[in-house]
Amino acid sequence: MAQEQPPLDLMGYETLTQDALRGVVRLALKRAASPPGLPDPHHFYISFKTRAAGVSIPSDLVAKYPDEMTIVLQHQFEDLAPGETFFSVTLTFGGAPRGLSIPYTAITRFYDPSVQFLLTFEAPEPPEAAAETPPVAAEPAGDQPKVVSLDQFRKK
Amino acid sequence: MAQEQPPLDLMGYETLTQDALRGVVRLALKRAASPPGLPDPHHFYISFKTRAAGVSIPSDLVAKYPDEMTIVLQHQFEDLAPGETFFSVTLTFGGAPRGLSIPYTAITRFYDPSVQFLLTFEAPEPPEAAAETPPVAAEPAGDQPKVVSLDQFRKK
Repeated sequence: MAQEQPPLDLMGYETLTQDALRGVVRLALKRAASPPGLPDPHHFYISFKTRAAGVSIPSDLVAKYPDEMTIVLQHQFEDLAPGETFFSVTLTFGGAPRGLSIPYTAITRFYDPSVQFLLTFEAPEPPEAAAETPPVAAEPAGDQPKVVSLDQFRKK
Repeated sequence: MAQEQPPLDLMGYETLTQDALRGVVRLALKRAASPPGLPDPHHFYISFKTRAAGVSIPSDLVAKYPDEMTIVLQHQFEDLAPGETFFSVTLTFGGAPRGLSIPYTAITRFYDPSVQFLLTFEAPEPPEAAAETPPVAAEPAGDQPKVVSLDQFRKK
């Protein structure tokens, strides 16, 4: 047991867990997209990496939010369509409807303030950065534990 | 915001999250059941309610562990067969092979000590108790937050 290196996770638990919890986001969005829709007072704050692989949003939004952006799904959204790997939705910015298509892997945070349900996810590598820099391991070899945060029903 | 009752979770986040994380157990077992099997030094401690609905284990084990039992899947297990809703496995107790069939919903704890990956789950209601007592809500209305524990890569 006198090991000096942190043990290697050959099972990929982190990925399994993150994938599973991204599935919770997918199911919540599916519920919101199905009649009768999002049950009041539930609503979602969804943060995502605007330049993550597969994200398709208007370029002016990327310019305004070059790293991360948070959208709110409450009353004013349309055409919510959660698929298996991404969801699309139409939101109004400055009076104009804009279509967004976001893979679940780009999401960094899902929060429903009505019950204070929070899921946070590891940020994906932006594809541009990955292309410009030498390949790096997705999991840094540091000593920091990597933890999926899961705080639900936290009371104020 | 002057609400006195805790907000009602109409989305069922707790169930969604627990189901998702039970899926992680299923995928870990599927990996263990597929060639080349469980990668050393990974191994599993799985705790489950011996009288939960759907559990099928020898009656002497139920008598010995009337509430909860923990099995270890490391070197000495056979016929591990993870299905969609339950898994079955043959373990040796006192020299005799015994078949166990355990629904994922009966699991209260999944632990891989090699990387200190831990998932804990709400205990299911035993069917006997549910039949003998008046029906109770699955989610007690108390003030205690109900949290799915998720601790991975916790260093000693």
